[in-house]
Amino acid sequence: MAATLVPGARFVERLGALQTRLAGDGLDALLVTQPANIFYLTSFRGSAGVVLLTPDGARLITDSRYATVATRLVEASAKEIPLTFVQVESSYEETVCVVLKQAGVSRVGIETAHMTLARYDWLKRALAGSGVELCRTIGLVESLRQVKDPGELATLREAGRRISRVMREMLSGLRVGRREREVAADIDWAIRDAGFEGPAFETIVAGGPNTALPHARPGEWRLAAGDLVLLDFGGILNGYCVDLTRVASLGHPGPVALGWHAAVGEAHEAALAAVGPGVWASAVDTAARAVLERRGLGAAFGHGTGHGLGLEVHEAPRVGKRRRAVGSSPSGDDPEDVRLEAGMVFTVEPGVYLRGRGGVRLEDDVVVTATGYELLTHVSLDLLVV
Amino acid sequence: MAATLVPGARFVERLGALQTRLAGDGLDALLVTQPANIFYLTSFRGSAGVVLLTPDGARLITDSRYATVATRLVEASAKEIPLTFVQVESSYEETVCVVLKQAGVSRVGIETAHMTLARYDWLKRALAGSGVELCRTIGLVESLRQVKDPGELATLREAGRRISRVMREMLSGLRVGRREREVAADIDWAIRDAGFEGPAFETIVAGGPNTALPHARPGEWRLAAGDLVLLDFGGILNGYCVDLTRVASLGHPGPVALGWHAAVGEAHEAALAAVGPGVWASAVDTAARAVLERRGLGAAFGHGTGHGLGLEVHEAPRVGKRRRAVGSSPSGDDPEDVRLEAGMVFTVEPGVYLRGRGGVRLEDDVVVTATGYELLTHVSLDLLVV
Repeated sequence: MAATLVPGARFVERLGALQTRLAGDGLDALLVTQPANIFYLTSFRGSAGVVLLTPDGARLITDSRYATVATRLVEASAKEIPLTFVQVESSYEETVCVVLKQAGVSRVGIETAHMTLARYDWLKRALAGSGVELCRTIGLVESLRQVKDPGELATLREAGRRISRVMREMLSGLRVGRREREVAADIDWAIRDAGFEGPAFETIVAGGPNTALPHARPGEWRLAAGDLVLLDFGGILNGYCVDLTRVASLGHPGPVALGWHAAVGEAHEAALAAVGPGVWASAVDTAARAVLERRGLGAAFGHGTGHGLGLEVHEAPRVGKRRRAVGSSPSGDDPEDVRLEAGMVFTVEPGVYLRGRGGVRLEDDVVVTATGYELLTHVSLDLLVV
Repeated sequence: MAATLVPGARFVERLGALQTRLAGDGLDALLVTQPANIFYLTSFRGSAGVVLLTPDGARLITDSRYATVATRLVEASAKEIPLTFVQVESSYEETVCVVLKQAGVSRVGIETAHMTLARYDWLKRALAGSGVELCRTIGLVESLRQVKDPGELATLREAGRRISRVMREMLSGLRVGRREREVAADIDWAIRDAGFEGPAFETIVAGGPNTALPHARPGEWRLAAGDLVLLDFGGILNGYCVDLTRVASLGHPGPVALGWHAAVGEAHEAALAAVGPGVWASAVDTAARAVLERRGLGAAFGHGTGHGLGLEVHEAPRVGKRRRAVGSSPSGDDPEDVRLEAGMVFTVEPGVYLRGRGGVRLEDDVVVTATGYELLTHVSLDLLVV
C-alpha cells in the first residue's frame, strides 16, 4: 500500500484544532477509535488501530499486520508532528491500557458513538484505580471533518467528475434482457477503471418494480422494455466518497413514471435552491418534502433528503427532518441538525417509492459555498430514454 | 430485492435455541442489534434494523426504506413464527423504547460487543423508571452461528467451489505490466460473474515488495517479471462469505521466494492436520506457528492462523494465539479460544512477511467434520509460475 500522506500542514492544523477543542473541554487526551477519524488525523487506513491524542502529539496503536505502514507513516511525519507507533502484542485493549498509564494523562475522552459497551466495560475495569478517567465525548473529530478544506474539496471535485462520467456511460449502455447483477458488475468494474479505489457502497441497480425499494440489492431481474431502471453508486478516491443516482427508462415511459420523475426533479431543484451558509440542514429537507407533499407524494418519500460525504459515505451533516437522536437528552433538540457552513459537502437525493409499482430517486453531491452551493456531480436531470 | 427466506424450519429452530438460552440466563428478551445476527434470526438484510426477541416471537424494527421488504418477510414467515414489523417513525432509539415498554418485558439482554456506548446511555436514560432493565450479554447469537447447519454448509461448499474457479482463472491470467488495481477490478468483476452478490472484503492484489504487507491495498504498482503476486479475495453467496489466498510468480522465482513458499505450505499442512473436533482453536495456530518458528520465520508470521467464516467474513471461532480479550476479566482466560466442533467453518492462512522484501500467504477455508476436516476451497498449493 502506497500510503497517501496527508500534506504535513493539514495534518498539523487538524491535530492543533482538536487539541484546542480538548483543552476547552477540560480533557487531557482523546482516544480515537473511529476509523475515519484516525485516517483524518494521521492518514493511517488499516482495518484496526487506535490513536491516543495528547497535547504533545499522537500515538498510533496497531498490530503487526500494519507495522510496515505505521513505521513509514511515523518516519514521513517526523518533521511535522510527534507521531509514534506502538505495536499491539496481545490485545488492543491491553495495549491501550498500558499506553494510557504511561502517557500520564488523567481525563481521557472516548468516542461514545463508536466505542462498544464491551470495550468500554473492559477498559473501565482495567483502569480502575489507575487515575485514568474515561470521559464521554460525541463527534469531536466528526465536527471538524464536516467542513472540508481546499485539498479535500479538490479531491471531491475530481471524484465527482469521474463518477459523473461513469454514470453517463452506464446509463447509455443499459439494454433490455440484462440482469441487474450483471449491470452492477459492469458498474463496479467501471468505477475501478475510472481510478477509484473501489465502490463507496454496494452498487444499486433496480429494474421495474424493484425501483420501489430505496435500498434494492441487484439480483436476477432482467431489464425489460418499459422498465424504469435506477442506478445508485459511488466511488472512493484517495479515501473520499461520492454518491450519485439517476433513473433511465427502457423505451418510452408511461405518464405515471413521467409524473414521478417530474415531481422528484422539482423537489431536487427546490432542495438545491435552499442550500446556503447559515441555513439549517433540516430546511433543505423541508424544501424537498414540501414539493412532494404538494404533489400528493409526501407519504412516498420515506427517507431524508441527504447525508454528508467525506471519508465516510454517510457522515455529518444529516439533511433530514429534525428529530430527537442518540446523544441528546430524550426531551432535547436534535443535535444532528446543524446550520450549514461553507465547505460542508452532502447529497441531495429526494425520491418517491410506491410499493409494487416503482419509484424514482435523483441524487447529486453539493458543497456549500459562501453564496450558495456548487454541484460536484454533473449528469443531466432529464429522464434518459434508452 | 428478492429476499431469500431462511427455510421455515431453520428459522424456528434458531429462534427456539436462542429462547432456551435466554431463559437459562434469566432474560425475558434479547435486543438484537448486530446485523448478521438479525439476518441469521429473521433473514432481514437491511443496513439498519433492530430485532426484539421475546418468548412469544420476534419484532423487527426498521425504517420506511425497508418497509416493503419487512412486510414481505412478515407475510412469508407468518405460518412459522410470530414475526411482526414495527416501523421507525422518528429515531430507532425512541421506537425501541416504545416497543420495549409495550412488550411487557423486564430483563432485556443487549449485545455489548455491538451496542455503542452512546446508544446504551440513551436507552438507559430513556428507560429509567420504566421497569425495563438492560442486561449485558456477549455473543449469544454468535455462539449459535459458529456451528453451521446443513443448509449453510451447502451454501459454503458451493461458494468455495465458485471462488476456487475464480482464483484459478485469475492466477493464470496474470501478466507483466498490469497494475494491481486493474487486476483487482477484473477479480471483482469475475466474483460477480460467478454469481456472488459481490466481494466479501476489499480484494487484495499485491505485487513484488507489496506482498510484505499482509493487508495491502491494490494500487498503481505494475506487475514485473520476477515478482511474486499475492491474490486474496472472497465472495458473498446468499449472505455467506468465503475467502481464499494464493501466490503466483511471474517468471521463475528465486530461491528465497521458493523457501518462503515451501515454509508457508508446510505450516498450512500442519495447521490442517491439527483440525478436528475437540481440539482447541489455538492448537491449530500453534501447529502452523511451530513450523515457521523451526524455519526461522516465526517473527515474520505476525497474525493469527485463521478466522471463522459465515455471515461475516471475520467471525467466531478465532484461530490464533490464546490471549486475554474484550469481555473477559483482565486476569482471566481467553473466552474466544474454543474447542472445535463439527460444523465450524474457518480459514487456515499462515503467512510470512519480510519488510521491504516480500511475503507469502496461503489460505483455504475448512469445515470441521466428525473425523477431521473438509476443504471448501480447491486450488493447487504449488507455487504457480505464470
